[in-house]
Amino acid sequence: MIVLGIDPGTISMGFGVIECQDNAVALIKYGALKTLARSPIGERLSFLYQNLQSIIAQYQPAEVAVEQPFVAKNASSAFAIGRAQAIAILAAANAHLPCFEYTPSEIKMRVANHGAADKAQVQQMVMLQLELKEIPEPNDAADALAVALCHVQVMQLEKLLNR
Amino acid sequence: MIVLGIDPGTISMGFGVIECQDNAVALIKYGALKTLARSPIGERLSFLYQNLQSIIAQYQPAEVAVEQPFVAKNASSAFAIGRAQAIAILAAANAHLPCFEYTPSEIKMRVANHGAADKAQVQQMVMLQLELKEIPEPNDAADALAVALCHVQVMQLEKLLNR
Repeated sequence: MIVLGIDPGTISMGFGVIECQDNAVALIKYGALKTLARSPIGERLSFLYQNLQSIIAQYQPAEVAVEQPFVAKNASSAFAIGRAQAIAILAAANAHLPCFEYTPSEIKMRVANHGAADKAQVQQMVMLQLELKEIPEPNDAADALAVALCHVQVMQLEKLLNR
Repeated sequence: MIVLGIDPGTISMGFGVIECQDNAVALIKYGALKTLARSPIGERLSFLYQNLQSIIAQYQPAEVAVEQPFVAKNASSAFAIGRAQAIAILAAANAHLPCFEYTPSEIKMRVANHGAADKAQVQQMVMLQLELKEIPEPNDAADALAVALCHVQVMQLEKLLNR
């Protein structure tokens, strides 16, 4: 099964595509969609939406996982995260893909075995689990791979429970 | 010029279509797109996006105006508003329409002449300015008409300034 992980942001939207087969996971692609902070929000959202549509068309994920924070630094940061999430969720829904949301602490717990793990620990675990030679960059791409890995673990557990 | 005003919400998205010609404004259509709070967020956002696309196709607005609060009750409310705004902004951008954002106090100031006007005063002014027989319902639709009227006033002032 191919999973698309998304770390939503309106300036930079991280994405990570991984494949899981039985208990093995493998990297397919990662990166970040960068927009110009000064360009109108409509242009940025449209750019992100179209690029996510292209990524979905190209890699044909079966499921999408999106990071969903519970808190934000301030209201304007929360509005921006909400906007970016909406673009990711809409791209998944319009491609008829189920979309799952995970909080940062859930992602840390699943990927680094610790809900309060720091960014470096999570990135290290992403690198190890996907057998990469170096930590994926930029940060948003590593975060997107982490949410995809988190989703795979949850699915594998559910499968075991349903047996 | 036809203006589409939007009061963004993921449960109920108010819309109001008005036409302004010289200094006169006239109502074309108003209403609210209602989603089921219990249905998956992807389905709701997709429903709202498709309906906004239909409204734009049907009424052919030249410009779109969206309410943009600066504050929210809490983070989860801010995320939800951000998501709904993104759908409105994306629908406008993908139809190549310019999209303008106004804060609630700016809307109150323009429509009811007072930045701290209450909801009832704004609704009363919407009714008077559009020569309606009663206050438009639901509230989200009245709010959407208010943001459309706010935008028309801003445009009319800019036109005067540019003369």
